[in-house]
This record gives sequence, structure tokens and C-alpha cells, in this order.
Amino acid sequence: MKPTDARPDGLAPSDAPAFVHPISVRWADCDPAFIAYTGRIPNFALEAIDAWWAATVGYDWFRLNADRGYSTPFVHMSIDFIAPVTPRHVLECAVRPLRLGDTSIRFEVVGSQDGTRCFAGEFVSVFVTTSGFRKTPPVDDIRELIVPHLPDAASAEAG
Amino acid sequence: MKPTDARPDGLAPSDAPAFVHPISVRWADCDPAFIAYTGRIPNFALEAIDAWWAATVGYDWFRLNADRGYSTPFVHMSIDFIAPVTPRHVLECAVRPLRLGDTSIRFEVVGSQDGTRCFAGEFVSVFVTTSGFRKTPPVDDIRELIVPHLPDAASAEAG
Amino acid sequence: MKPTDARPDGLAPSDAPAFVHPISVRWADCDPAFIAYTGRIPNFALEAIDAWWAATVGYDWFRLNADRGYSTPFVHMSIDFIAPVTPRHVLECAVRPLRLGDTSIRFEVVGSQDGTRCFAGEFVSVFVTTSGFRKTPPVDDIRELIVPHLPDAASAEAG
Amino acid sequence: MKPTDARPDGLAPSDAPAFVHPISVRWADCDPAFIAYTGRIPNFALEAIDAWWAATVGYDWFRLNADRGYSTPFVHMSIDFIAPVTPRHVLECAVRPLRLGDTSIRFEVVGSQDGTRCFAGEFVSVFVTTSGFRKTPPVDDIRELIVPHLPDAASAEAG
Repeated sequence: MKPTDARPDGLAPSDAPAFVHPISVRWADCDPAFIAYTGRIPNFALEAIDAWWAATVGYDWFRLNADRGYSTPFVHMSIDFIAPVTPRHVLECAVRPLRLGDTSIRFEVVGSQDGTRCFAGEFVSVFVTTSGFRKTPPVDDIRELIVPHLPDAASAEAG
Repeated sequence: MKPTDARPDGLAPSDAPAFVHPISVRWADCDPAFIAYTGRIPNFALEAIDAWWAATVGYDWFRLNADRGYSTPFVHMSIDFIAPVTPRHVLECAVRPLRLGDTSIRFEVVGSQDGTRCFAGEFVSVFVTTSGFRKTPPVDDIRELIVPHLPDAASAEAG
Repeated sequence: MKPTDARPDGLAPSDAPAFVHPISVRWADCDPAFIAYTGRIPNFALEAIDAWWAATVGYDWFRLNADRGYSTPFVHMSIDFIAPVTPRHVLECAVRPLRLGDTSIRFEVVGSQDGTRCFAGEFVSVFVTTSGFRKTPPVDDIRELIVPHLPDAASAEAG
Repeated sequence: MKPTDARPDGLAPSDAPAFVHPISVRWADCDPAFIAYTGRIPNFALEAIDAWWAATVGYDWFRLNADRGYSTPFVHMSIDFIAPVTPRHVLECAVRPLRLGDTSIRFEVVGSQDGTRCFAGEFVSVFVTTSGFRKTPPVDDIRELIVPHLPDAASAEAG
């Protein structure tokens, strides 16, 4: 976990440092063009968000589902592919929650290799109950662990 | 291959029918929430676009790369996840090119199961030479096979 | 579904024709060596077995689990990789149950492209209850749908 | 990298410690049975072998192919699935070369979680030239880096 100061949208960086999840890109991820297959990139970003949950609230998606009764299905993803991803360097995925709504959370994930930005994306998921799959706000203890990582406190207010 | 008349963006449908690629969603695609894992959805959409190439210009990505010297790396994807995807029904992926630029092409992919729209996305890729990975316009014979599938002729003009 | 008469082990073919599941191998499956990545091959074979279940007993793994209360976790797989798998031809996966024990089932899967045998493997799974994950014999109606596909009736006896 | 003293075959451990590659199993790897999908296990083992190459000879599969002109396609894999793999614990994959032939290498991979053996497999690959895909012995400097990791020196002799 280390700070990154770049923002894909050109906004000033928030005070909160991003969580950085390193991924070893492998032969298995690459296609005949000798770069990571496009379909692997969203999976890298999702893995980084899963790791963010574990690091930030102490529950990865598996435990959040099995032990806390929440799932966080995605309702949107948007990714710009900026430079090819290869096994030559570690892929550092910087994860930053951008906004916490009543029942949703928006993340930014920026993937970089050797200082070059490779992709930047936004991902929105909603909180649902594991049993019933109904939208629900996260409980207070989870919300309180997320809020300090938001760009600013105001973001937590706007549903 | 059959027509679909719905557009995710609310625009009037084009005259050109969409190409529909059916996918059998499987146990292997599902996560513990008993639905297809989020990371599988972009891969379903990409598979449908690959199938569109084979059906429309006679070359899938493998042959386009190996036999024609083109790759079509993606520069953008954006997906709205509308309803869960499950193995209960075939996933019909309707692919429609929205716009053909000088060196890029934008697709819409809408995935439906049993009449319910599950996801809708847009995907932009660029034409590059396999050797050198340089942007290049597609050759005329490929362009001519794509144009009739565009929403309207004007779209082919705007670079 | 069509018969294949070859056996990877050199045994005489059984009377029962194999179930053949066709797979379109794609760019997404290939690695920089321009062939399907090794790790994709077991997944192709598993997909073919899943399709065998749907065709033979009317329940794929998802429905077997959700609707009938069974899972069939694997306890063994063994695969010989004989020739590269590529997107040039359809991959025909011939599935044949070799032996049905009290609580287990052994399959042979042979993958061929354009008449060339690409891989041949054996896969053993056990029947367990979905709730509790305890070994259990399959119910009679499922057993009766499987037995006619065994190499010979005797195989069904030996637990 | 740390020693493991267990052998799946009950043989006395070799003097050479195994290379241990840790994998974080995730929600993305799990199926509706709440365990890692069978098709993910061979991919975990392959990832561990790829990591062994990087650690042992200084080239992972990507660099071995791109920078040294070798590929190591697999001709066989055999895996016993002993206990379910879950996201609850790190998956420690112990990789040990069992035998180095003239143009082939056999690996054992044992996957364990929290002290419980989850799977044990053997994997055989052959050395081929990247251009031409012809069987070839590895060059001396690579062979010399592998030999010290073999169970005993004699194994390196028998082709």
C-alpha cells in the first residue's frame, strides 16, 4: 500500500493515498499479440478491488458474502486502455473509492507498469443482502471503515 | 443471427439487424452468488465481437492477426450490468457496429437472457498492424464488408 | 452428438457412441505461442463433461446442484496433450463415461480438431450432497440415465 | 521460497527444498459450491511452475519464449484433488522438478492450505524452439541451473 498522486480524470489528487495491489502478469494472461488479453484487464481491476476490501474493511468478497451476509454486485464498469499490459513489469493497481452512496460505492482503479499508466477505470457496485439479493445500506462499522478513504468527507453524504 | 430492435441508448434502432451470438453460460462461469462472475461478462461480450468479425468479414481475431496482418486492440469498454446472468437460459449477445472511424471501430453489445436485458456495453478498438503495432486504416475490402452493418452510411464518413 | 470409434488407451471401442461437444477455440484462449494455453485445455474438457450431464441426464452442473441437490466434485484428472489446439478448427470433445461406481463416475474426454487427436484425458468425480458435501450414491433415476452410456453393463456393478 | 518436507507419493523427501509459490484464492476463483472451481486448480499449478522458472533459471515462460527462444509446452498433467481449495487461507504451491530428460522436464506440484494438502499433481513439459516448435535440449546454462533442484543427481542422467 503506497500513495499515488495521479488521477485519470485530471482532478487534483485526494488526500487519501490509494491502495496499491500488485499483480504479476503472466504468460497465461497473454494472447498471441504478446500482451495481456483485453478480457484479463477487467479481471485484474476486480482482483484489486477485492484486495481493497480485504485491506480496508477486513473482509474480501468471499468473507463479506459468507461471514457478513453482503454481496457487492457491479452495476457499471468503464475502462480506458491506455498502454499494453505485459509480463515485463509488475502491474500496480491503485484502488481509490470515489464516492459512497447509501447503497452503492464507486471505485477508480488505475493500472500502471514501470511508471506508465496502462489502464484507468471506474467501477460501481451496490450493496445487497446475500440472502434475497436486496439492496441494503452497509452496516455502520463497514461504512466507518470506508469513509476515511473517500476523496473528501462530503462524498459520503451524497446518496 | 436475428434482428433485435432495442437500443441501450434509447436511440431509434438502425435498419441493420444486429448479429446475435449465443453463449451457454455454465457452472464454470458462476461465483458463489450463483450468478456469472462480473469478470466473465466483458469476456462474453468480447467473444461475441470476435464472432461478429468471423461472421461479418470472414476473419476472427486469430485469423485477422495471423492471415491478414491486423490486430484490433481495445482502447475503451463501458458496460452497464442490468440483471444477473445465469446458466438458466442462453445468453444472446447482440453485436452492432455503431461507428467506423479511419482507424477505429465502436461496437455495442447487448446481452439478454429469456427476453431480459442483462447487460449493455460499448467497446472501441483500433486497427493496428500486427508487425509494429502501428495504427492503420483497414484495407478497402474489410471496410466494405463492415459499412453495410453500420447504423447509417454517414457514420462511416466521420473519422 | 455422433459416435467416435477411437480410444486413447487402445482398448476396443465400446458399443455406446460418445457424446461430442463442439467448442469454438478463440483468440482469447491462445497464448503468445499462438496455440490454446495449456490451462485452457482442462477447462475445455470440463465444459464438455458439463454438457454431457445436460444431454444425458437433463441437468447440467448448475441445475444438478440447484435443482437436484447434488454436486460432482472432481477427485482426479489426467490429460495427455498430443497436438496443439488452435482456433483453426472446431474442437470436438468426445465424452464417454468409463465406469460408474457407487458414489463416483469416471469419464474419458478426447479432444480432436480436423480429425487430429489433440488431447485425451480421464476425469473422476464423486457424487456429494449439495448441503453438507457428503458422499452419496446418485438417485435411481439419474443412475438409470447414465448406465446405458457405459462401455458395458458390468462396469456399473463394480463399485 | 521455503522448504517443505512432505511428498505426495510417500517417498522420502529429497534434499532439495521445494520452491513454494503462494496464491491468494479469491471469490473470482470460486463456483457456486463455495470452493475454487476445478478448472482453476490446474491453472494455479501452472502459475506455480511459471513462477518456479522465474525463480530458478531467471526467466518466466514469457521471457523464456521472447528472450531465450524456448517454449516448454506440456505433454501431460495428472492431478489428485484431495481437499477443497477456498479463499480462507493462502494456497501454498510447492514445486519440485522430479526428473530432467534430454528434452523434457517433470514437475511435482503440491497445493496446501493451512497445513492441509489440497491437491498433488505431476506435470511434464518438453523443450521446443520458439521458432519452428521443434524439440530441443535446453542450453547448458539453463540445464545447470535446474540440476541442483532435482531429487538426486542420477535423475539428470536418465533421458
